[in-house]
Amino acid sequence: MVDRTPGPIDRLLEEAWALVAGNDEGVVADYIPELAKADPATFGLGLATLDGAVYTTGDLVPFTIQSVSKPFVYALALADRGPAAVLDRVGAEPTGDPFNTISLDQASGRAFNPMVNAGAIVTATLVGGDTRAEQFDRILDGLSSFAGRPLDVDEAVYASERDTGDRNRAIAYLMRSAGLLDEDVDAQVELYFRQCSILVTARDLAVMAATLANAGVNPVTGEQVVPRSVVAPVLTVMSTCGMYDYAGEWLYRVGLPAKSGVSGGIAAALPGQLGLAAHSPRLDARGNSVRGVAAAELLSERLGLHLLRPNGRPRPGVRRTYRGDAVHSKRTRQRGEAACLEDAGSAIAVHELLGDQSFVSVEVLVRAVLADPVPARWWILDLSRVSRIDLAARALFDGLVQQLQDSGQQPVLVEPRARGPREVMGQLSTALPRFPDVDRALEWCEAELLLAEGRRAELAEGLVPLAEQDLLRDLPVDAVGAIEQRAVTRVFTAGTVVFEEGAPADGLYFVGAGEVMADLRVRGQRDRRRLSSVAAGSAFGELALVDGRPRSTRIVAVEPTICHVLAPEAFEGLRREAPEAAAGLLLAIARSLSQRLRASTAEVAALEEA
Amino acid sequence: MVDRTPGPIDRLLEEAWALVAGNDEGVVADYIPELAKADPATFGLGLATLDGAVYTTGDLVPFTIQSVSKPFVYALALADRGPAAVLDRVGAEPTGDPFNTISLDQASGRAFNPMVNAGAIVTATLVGGDTRAEQFDRILDGLSSFAGRPLDVDEAVYASERDTGDRNRAIAYLMRSAGLLDEDVDAQVELYFRQCSILVTARDLAVMAATLANAGVNPVTGEQVVPRSVVAPVLTVMSTCGMYDYAGEWLYRVGLPAKSGVSGGIAAALPGQLGLAAHSPRLDARGNSVRGVAAAELLSERLGLHLLRPNGRPRPGVRRTYRGDAVHSKRTRQRGEAACLEDAGSAIAVHELLGDQSFVSVEVLVRAVLADPVPARWWILDLSRVSRIDLAARALFDGLVQQLQDSGQQPVLVEPRARGPREVMGQLSTALPRFPDVDRALEWCEAELLLAEGRRAELAEGLVPLAEQDLLRDLPVDAVGAIEQRAVTRVFTAGTVVFEEGAPADGLYFVGAGEVMADLRVRGQRDRRRLSSVAAGSAFGELALVDGRPRSTRIVAVEPTICHVLAPEAFEGLRREAPEAAAGLLLAIARSLSQRLRASTAEVAALEEA
Repeated sequence: MVDRTPGPIDRLLEEAWALVAGNDEGVVADYIPELAKADPATFGLGLATLDGAVYTTGDLVPFTIQSVSKPFVYALALADRGPAAVLDRVGAEPTGDPFNTISLDQASGRAFNPMVNAGAIVTATLVGGDTRAEQFDRILDGLSSFAGRPLDVDEAVYASERDTGDRNRAIAYLMRSAGLLDEDVDAQVELYFRQCSILVTARDLAVMAATLANAGVNPVTGEQVVPRSVVAPVLTVMSTCGMYDYAGEWLYRVGLPAKSGVSGGIAAALPGQLGLAAHSPRLDARGNSVRGVAAAELLSERLGLHLLRPNGRPRPGVRRTYRGDAVHSKRTRQRGEAACLEDAGSAIAVHELLGDQSFVSVEVLVRAVLADPVPARWWILDLSRVSRIDLAARALFDGLVQQLQDSGQQPVLVEPRARGPREVMGQLSTALPRFPDVDRALEWCEAELLLAEGRRAELAEGLVPLAEQDLLRDLPVDAVGAIEQRAVTRVFTAGTVVFEEGAPADGLYFVGAGEVMADLRVRGQRDRRRLSSVAAGSAFGELALVDGRPRSTRIVAVEPTICHVLAPEAFEGLRREAPEAAAGLLLAIARSLSQRLRASTAEVAALEEA
Repeated sequence: MVDRTPGPIDRLLEEAWALVAGNDEGVVADYIPELAKADPATFGLGLATLDGAVYTTGDLVPFTIQSVSKPFVYALALADRGPAAVLDRVGAEPTGDPFNTISLDQASGRAFNPMVNAGAIVTATLVGGDTRAEQFDRILDGLSSFAGRPLDVDEAVYASERDTGDRNRAIAYLMRSAGLLDEDVDAQVELYFRQCSILVTARDLAVMAATLANAGVNPVTGEQVVPRSVVAPVLTVMSTCGMYDYAGEWLYRVGLPAKSGVSGGIAAALPGQLGLAAHSPRLDARGNSVRGVAAAELLSERLGLHLLRPNGRPRPGVRRTYRGDAVHSKRTRQRGEAACLEDAGSAIAVHELLGDQSFVSVEVLVRAVLADPVPARWWILDLSRVSRIDLAARALFDGLVQQLQDSGQQPVLVEPRARGPREVMGQLSTALPRFPDVDRALEWCEAELLLAEGRRAELAEGLVPLAEQDLLRDLPVDAVGAIEQRAVTRVFTAGTVVFEEGAPADGLYFVGAGEVMADLRVRGQRDRRRLSSVAAGSAFGELALVDGRPRSTRIVAVEPTICHVLAPEAFEGLRREAPEAAAGLLLAIARSLSQRLRASTAEVAALEEA
């Protein structure tokens, strides 16, 4: 069942299905009469990715979940009671005994682990709820959240389990004798029977497994079903105890934390990658689905899913690095400032990070910063694209920031956009300059650098006259005079839109006082992004005189701003009446364009190589 | 011992060391007299990353490797004999028995696993070599390669082991009775004793573990010590059987495949991430180093190293994606062509891939391509930055290419730069257009698109006159005439450098016939990268007339080429004598620059968002 164009992944599953479907070995479990009614020909496969794509093939008939429920209920118990309370009654040690053994770990007085019936019966009584009925609601709701849809109970199987469940009652009484269960043994065993009678499909199991692989977040619904912290314990007991007596060889051959059940289901999770599920009722001597095991082995081999398979190095968490001499902030700089930044800008270093940050990824950053043969004075750590920061990563960030500060270098933070990492970094004890984007951080560092180098342009007092405008500085006095005659003065209060994107080109603007900003709405983000800032002494909108096309960005006055504006008609007049002045202005515009083009080309190259 | 600036990682290790060093529990092993001489105060830690950084703290005294040798010799045996021959004699099932149990797996007639002495003695006899002496050389050389330095044997410990090793002899005779060992039991047990007597430090063990974590490649020396394929089996038996009777709880609490030994060493590997090692001689009741276990638990917790800890999604293997309407090849297009590419270029889609490609990463690509709401006609799959492609990934690429072709879409390949993936992709059965970089692939797709749209510019017959040059098309006839009077004709044979980067600006070049290319030497790469191609009808070097700065790139004639060149002095003459023509030319240049700047800005934005 596919709700999108079938592709090579569907064909891969279909091939695996076809290769395994011919295998008629094994027998359907019959110790519960209702289970014996299962159609032995049934065979379904499911695969769910961590961004919510679900692939299935074969039969997606509902079946009772049976022991495959155990790791998920264990996760709920860990979530509701905390690991200490659970470990108090149920251990995590593998046992050589069969799943339905009537025994407990004498050394510790606990059930061996939550994957054998004894441990599972105790585990079910540990999920949240004041009554057994409330606990069952919690289990049914919890498993439904794992599956991403409301699940039901097969009442016929439940009745059948209850009628024939004396072995589990024996286990429960043994548990009660050890003080692991309370008075109401019958109600507690029935809670477990109902848990086993919940109906699922191979698709459900794939999504449930993918939820574990996805740190407890259902990748289809986005719901955080259990806290991230319970996932490693659950996957560990699945690794060591999930496949009955076949656990060791399963981990060797298939290499996936998994759980199987007597109704023929198997759910397997590859942490950080995917969930895989199979369902076919015929079981081998150890109680695992024959086709399920065969399909898992085949798919693990073909898809390269072994947990311990060396997958090569993780991609480093550093997106790119560059220096402030090649890449600048979007502030339009006057000539002297621009030259200074090109000369000395390498004192500003930018490291853009990406994705989840853990010990290994931040270690790479720390080494790159501390071992850089050309140390910077300002280190911009751009965390805006970071999706997660774990505690180890934070400790390393903390240590790095401290060490840079101690040696007189200035770390500068670009805040993470995602809420989680923003909170983690908000706790950094050290006070740091923090900015919402690299552009602002660069601008701040540039200002510091220009100040340190004594090259920061004086803030203009009053109105910058046309003769002192950067663009007109090299023109003869009479040419500037000719331009001045034809220019008009316009005043904008702070926040006024000077012109909108797409507006007709109405002239070349010289900023006499104040400051404007060009910005752009970024697809998929709420905020607009700054393209450039232009302060007194610089010009914008020069393309109006050159190509006459509509404005490519909007311009907003960020301060009270006064501009000298040369309209296209005025420029035409200049061309007719003072052609030398017009040619001088055109040459100045072409020079400014060529400078910006060279800078843009250099920036593209620097970012490409970064 | 650090050969670089100490940083936060060193401090982290030191903290862990200090927290654990006060623990004086446990006793030094004394069943071999020489081992009892170890200084119980010794305590060293090591951590090695997969790009070869090694951090150590505490004591790096040499000690005999003992049982920590087992997984590494197992790796050598798997490499030399293949998994089938090894599994024939040594299984992979955990056993509840102690490490020196005199028993074998009755069901299979094999030693239980290579981490107990019985299995290890058999394993040692399976490494390559015609004599026991040759086999020992192989073991010593192999372990030295794992450590990245020549290792020695402690002859005193070896003699002591040999003198007191009757229990191991008993095990060996049992193995021989089962047909698992050959005649020379003494020589075979001595091979094992010598293996246990090899001297290492905590630093060595960290590098050895990191070599396993790094798919068999020593991260310090770069040597492929064992094939990638043996790593998962080795790490699996370490996971299930590496820490004696503590294996289950170790995996639950520490979560790292590991091996410990009676001399107090522990080596732990986190696949794809790092190697960790500890050495301190006092052992707990199960035979594991007390401080080693405590330090590993602490570091796993603090560094977030649990194998089954959900580390969030892997970063997708797609670097960026964009369409051919926003990003173009470096070929300078004439106006009609350029307009057509802006209108219809979205029929070309580029997916740039990055890093290791496995099932999960290519699945994301496949879904992105097949589910794209705006299907493209040409799909450029840029594999140039791909570091590895596993078989599952290749099968998906294969399936995707096939499916695109079947539905009349054209996949286009940019070849991987790395040798491994290039070979893997070379085997792709389907004939595909292949290019060395995205730029060439884009140019080819653009040509196909222009052809399909009927907008491909006619190839000029003979020389394109100045009046038909793209830049001069809108100028009045007399202005073109004035320029023509002042231009000179220059001829270049194919391969000639027209001008070098940094050369003085000697004029504006109109290509009358042929084609030139601007290119740039890319840091760290052998080849030069094309910046642009300019064919007949287009111009280059216009900045010479505008800013007079030295050339920013070199230009090479790629075909026999004829240019009309307007030198700066000639342009000055034009400004004096035909100011209207000069102004018209300047306006045309400014327009062309503004168009390029707009395109460059759009490209930066598209690539930034891609």
